[in-house]
Amino acid sequence: PQDEMIKTITLIPGDGIGPEISSAVMKIFDAAKVPVHWEERNVTAIKGPGGKWMIPPEAKESMDKSKIGLKGPLKTPIAAGHPSMNLLLRKTFDLYANVRPCVSIEGYKTAYSDVDLVTIRENTEGEYSGIEHVIVDGVVQSIKLITEDASRRIAEFAFEYARSNQRSTVTAVHKANIMRMSDGLFLKKCREVAENYKDIKFTEMYLDTVCLNMVQEPTQFDVLVMPNLYGDILSDLCAGLIGGLGVTPSGNIGANGVAIFESVHGTAPDIAGKDLANPTALLLSAVMMLRHMGLHEQSRKIQTACYDTIQDKKVVTKDLGGNAKCSEFTDEICRRVRDL
Amino acid sequence: PQDEMIKTITLIPGDGIGPEISSAVMKIFDAAKVPVHWEERNVTAIKGPGGKWMIPPEAKESMDKSKIGLKGPLKTPIAAGHPSMNLLLRKTFDLYANVRPCVSIEGYKTAYSDVDLVTIRENTEGEYSGIEHVIVDGVVQSIKLITEDASRRIAEFAFEYARSNQRSTVTAVHKANIMRMSDGLFLKKCREVAENYKDIKFTEMYLDTVCLNMVQEPTQFDVLVMPNLYGDILSDLCAGLIGGLGVTPSGNIGANGVAIFESVHGTAPDIAGKDLANPTALLLSAVMMLRHMGLHEQSRKIQTACYDTIQDKKVVTKDLGGNAKCSEFTDEICRRVRDL
Ligand SMILES: CC(C)[C@H](C(=O)O)[C@@H](O)C(=O)O
Ligand SMILES: CC(C)[C@H](C(=O)O)[C@@H](O)C(=O)O
Repeated sequence: PQDEMIKTITLIPGDGIGPEISSAVMKIFDAAKVPVHWEERNVTAIKGPGGKWMIPPEAKESMDKSKIGLKGPLKTPIAAGHPSMNLLLRKTFDLYANVRPCVSIEGYKTAYSDVDLVTIRENTEGEYSGIEHVIVDGVVQSIKLITEDASRRIAEFAFEYARSNQRSTVTAVHKANIMRMSDGLFLKKCREVAENYKDIKFTEMYLDTVCLNMVQEPTQFDVLVMPNLYGDILSDLCAGLIGGLGVTPSGNIGANGVAIFESVHGTAPDIAGKDLANPTALLLSAVMMLRHMGLHEQSRKIQTACYDTIQDKKVVTKDLGGNAKCSEFTDEICRRVRDL
Repeated sequence: PQDEMIKTITLIPGDGIGPEISSAVMKIFDAAKVPVHWEERNVTAIKGPGGKWMIPPEAKESMDKSKIGLKGPLKTPIAAGHPSMNLLLRKTFDLYANVRPCVSIEGYKTAYSDVDLVTIRENTEGEYSGIEHVIVDGVVQSIKLITEDASRRIAEFAFEYARSNQRSTVTAVHKANIMRMSDGLFLKKCREVAENYKDIKFTEMYLDTVCLNMVQEPTQFDVLVMPNLYGDILSDLCAGLIGGLGVTPSGNIGANGVAIFESVHGTAPDIAGKDLANPTALLLSAVMMLRHMGLHEQSRKIQTACYDTIQDKKVVTKDLGGNAKCSEFTDEICRRVRDL
């Protein structure tokens, strides 16, 4: 409807296949008449005052205003001491929750079916503190940092997410049998927060046990919440269950609605520019973004069109078992979006 | 042959189903005429001088003499401050390498087939340092400790293992992109050691990538070597691929041939004493033990008899898809051992 406010989204197309899959998403958004305006920004890090790496001010300002970003893959910086751009973005905007829904895709066969779970990863501390020292020659310490505030915040996020997404169970994943104080604190906060969400079931499980059960029967899981590194591991593991990073969406959420949604696969330089890339992961991330923005109708339409196209198998990219080009796959989704 | 030297093995039957599955193994060893003598010991921890928990002197002395242990499941101690017995055993005997071969079992269907890999886990340091502090209220640090010596030692172990077990590739699993110094040191040592084993291919992979690839195509992996926590996770994940802890053997190896082989499943108190337990994990651990002791013929015989019995499906326990009792399954293996 024409009176809907047009929202701005910061678009970070990224490297390699990034621009192609970003175009695909924009095309599909057009077809779905999503009331958004794209503000394209580059995030190649620059050296700020004091030699600190930072994202370019134009990108920062755009995000500060729009609060919502969509991001394609970024190539790993090779300059010495250069931080991972993904980490820098999470840090710059305090995107404390990484959310990855892993849902089996009909028509894309893997060893599993009916997977439908969400990993919620604490995104700011834990093993990613970046604090390390050499104690004496040949002896190194890395610090895993767990705080009460970040643990409570992510636990609350997980329960809120479960509630507003009609999910029934939150499982805290930990190794508090080994890291009694740090994982112990994380677990304690999860337990405390659980008290305030009596409508959601709360369970706890060791990380190793989760991994074992996950590959045996992933359908037993619903929402999982965990410290940073465990989330890094589990989110990739779970993506593997449903077909890999090419079909798995991801969102990094901060306070006050700030969020960046991203495909977490690589830049695939070998096929970049050849119209062969599969835009599904970025598209499904954009679908998450629309839900986050409250644009539920468009979100549903695009998701349905995407899933139907994949299930139909006639016009899908090579990695999805077909021989369509990226643009053909995109057009097919657009066609279906318009028909919905 | 009667002139073979009879070796002593320290047997720690453990709790719950431990005694039953230990009896099963002893019975099968008898049938295979394995020239060993069992010295049964209890390892309930006691408080030593200064309030330090330690394993009972009789168990320690037996292990010190025999150098070889076979261990059933132990129940988790509930006394406050009581350490995990598994950790205490690893520490007491400096069992620095945890070795878990994960091999698909014909006749026991899982989502995967032809898995044939080995995880080699550094067993003494890393996230298991046990060093943790509260920095200020609500802020906790756990220390991950990586040393040059332990990293080199486990890398050498992995390559030696690969070479003597006719395996072609060793993959170092790490997060040196995040823990640049600690995992960086681990990786550096792996690379250095790899230089001395030109007959073995060396590769490196991020832990998250390994997890993703593992659930998609585990047959691509061979020998994997990694720091403590990653090994905890990956070894359970891989056990899940082939049917779980009930069929996965494990060995903890130290210097000078000292080793404890163990089933890593739980004590299953619900079925304890009912002749329903599946002794496979402990039996296959005992098979690893025989190989470690150089008793290759008996090792092969028992392994073949065990696998054949499972594949045949006629006389297997409930968890393996049958309805045989533990004793019937055991007798069937004994019968086959005698026929080989
Ligand atoms: C790129 C890398 C720093 C990152 C991580 O380890 O968190 C990645 O694996 C991820 O999951 O986003
Ligand atoms: C029992 C527990 C302390 C142990 C660990 O975390 O190492 C277990 O998971 C294992 O793998 O042996």
